[in-house]
Amino acid sequence: MTSPIRVTVTGAAGNIGYALLFRLASGDCFGKDQPLILQLLEIPPAMKALEGVVMELNDAAFPLVHGIEISDDPNVAFSGVNQAFLVGSRPRGPGMLRSDLVAANGPIFVGQGKAINDNAADDVRVVVVGNPCNTNALIAMHSAPDVPNARFTAMTRLDQNRAISQLSGKLGGTAGDFSKMAIWGNHSPTMFPDFYQAQKNGQSVLELASEEWFQNEFLTTVSTRGKAIIAARGQSSAASAASAALDHMASWWHGTSEGEWVSMGIPSDGSYGVPEGLIFSYPVTISDGKYSIVQGLSHNEFAKERLANTIAELEGEKAAVADLLS
Amino acid sequence: MTSPIRVTVTGAAGNIGYALLFRLASGDCFGKDQPLILQLLEIPPAMKALEGVVMELNDAAFPLVHGIEISDDPNVAFSGVNQAFLVGSRPRGPGMLRSDLVAANGPIFVGQGKAINDNAADDVRVVVVGNPCNTNALIAMHSAPDVPNARFTAMTRLDQNRAISQLSGKLGGTAGDFSKMAIWGNHSPTMFPDFYQAQKNGQSVLELASEEWFQNEFLTTVSTRGKAIIAARGQSSAASAASAALDHMASWWHGTSEGEWVSMGIPSDGSYGVPEGLIFSYPVTISDGKYSIVQGLSHNEFAKERLANTIAELEGEKAAVADLLS
Repeated sequence: MTSPIRVTVTGAAGNIGYALLFRLASGDCFGKDQPLILQLLEIPPAMKALEGVVMELNDAAFPLVHGIEISDDPNVAFSGVNQAFLVGSRPRGPGMLRSDLVAANGPIFVGQGKAINDNAADDVRVVVVGNPCNTNALIAMHSAPDVPNARFTAMTRLDQNRAISQLSGKLGGTAGDFSKMAIWGNHSPTMFPDFYQAQKNGQSVLELASEEWFQNEFLTTVSTRGKAIIAARGQSSAASAASAALDHMASWWHGTSEGEWVSMGIPSDGSYGVPEGLIFSYPVTISDGKYSIVQGLSHNEFAKERLANTIAELEGEKAAVADLLS
Repeated sequence: MTSPIRVTVTGAAGNIGYALLFRLASGDCFGKDQPLILQLLEIPPAMKALEGVVMELNDAAFPLVHGIEISDDPNVAFSGVNQAFLVGSRPRGPGMLRSDLVAANGPIFVGQGKAINDNAADDVRVVVVGNPCNTNALIAMHSAPDVPNARFTAMTRLDQNRAISQLSGKLGGTAGDFSKMAIWGNHSPTMFPDFYQAQKNGQSVLELASEEWFQNEFLTTVSTRGKAIIAARGQSSAASAASAALDHMASWWHGTSEGEWVSMGIPSDGSYGVPEGLIFSYPVTISDGKYSIVQGLSHNEFAKERLANTIAELEGEKAAVADLLS
């Protein structure tokens, strides 16, 4: 039998964690033949609720689950971890600016980055879901100098999936009909869902709807989707965020199929004029656990302006946490 | 490509529905090659929240989802349905007795049974999750005279899974090490988790812990597990109930493997002295979509008394809704 991998989930008692854990445990991410040991991190006030989540996980009698450990200490929760989902973060309170949010989350990700550095397995892979996820990933990466930078990623798969949802709603077809829906930049309203590259069954989507619709309604709907869901459900996105996190890690684990691109926030290598040292979402292909940025795509003036905006925002966030990037 | 099946979920905006839908949509129940059309039923006050759930389902960009329809009309929601999860029910309010709960839910399941009778596909299969699920299933079955009785089932897989969770906690090992954990009777505290049949890796669990532990602590913990989870989480079981519903329908769809028993509430055929005409949980094996009660098991006096108790409770529930069983 395959040996179990250790999977850490932070913020495990929260709504995204709750939606994530049962799909993880059922084998939906790493496969039906891959046993897991779940290592769940929460803050002390949430440990009692986490115990309840663990009771329910046990009560689901998942054959793949070979152990469940809980802790409020990152050094324990990241011990020997192979796959880490960093879901927990300080949410934005009333009146908080994005810069306040960035500052409030910094210390959490310094601590978790250090704990990963000191305790994780050699093959550790990290996805940061907790917002502001690109900059949180940057902080964690800087706090883990012994771990290769490429192991720290941020989730923009939710934006990719939301963009496909809008394409499908407008153009018909199922999600599987759409491809090459690249997300560039920050997981924030400045990110650029690159409809210029996107295809429906191999045909450019620009042949199927007007450029004006894409530049306005499409971009606005995708970038404000989170608020629209809160208005309808009365709660923020949870299961769709969890689903995107699973997609992100599943793609990294299993690789992409021929012609498939997925979007991931990764350490920039300077491609497409993005400054090195930002965690930036690119379209990538993945093989044998290594992702490669899709090269050679062209950007028109509209796209270049969007990229410049999201680069500027990420540079601003980086400057705001400069003292944490030792 | 395989044609999509129509899957109805009632109470789709509730917590169990929310935990169920994303696993369904990912292919976790009917397989990664089986497309689905989701048909979601809610009561009018929950339709807005349900729209939010649908936004999130769309935003998960599941390739297997070929359509999502929502309605507050059972005739619409059950139109052409192949697989029905009856999750929604009136919850027990403060001071309500079980008999009040039975009476309050009766009309809901009369209406849904009729709607299934008039609208479902010929191969429809129904699992009732909403409590009191055995008697709700009985009412729906009686309201659908044109549908074979065997298509109406009630979920006791959660009890089976909870029992395995307790065995694993006490005796060590993973869920996959345990088998033949039969649940008899009503999905209520009177049900009997039959430790006399249960095995760990082929060995009777009675060789691994005292009969006294099974008769007392084990039975009490399994039958009061729901309350313990509410105390820890602050909310009732949702994801573990959803998981059991998926397990129930997946076993019915894919069949059981050699030597595997699963527990389902099904119309009694008189086996083991259970009166015909109750929906009673038995251990079954499943092949080609047909379940067969495991025959020839012996019950000692302790087990016989437990069976008599749960039969009496189900007969009482049936008597309380006699006017609905036309």
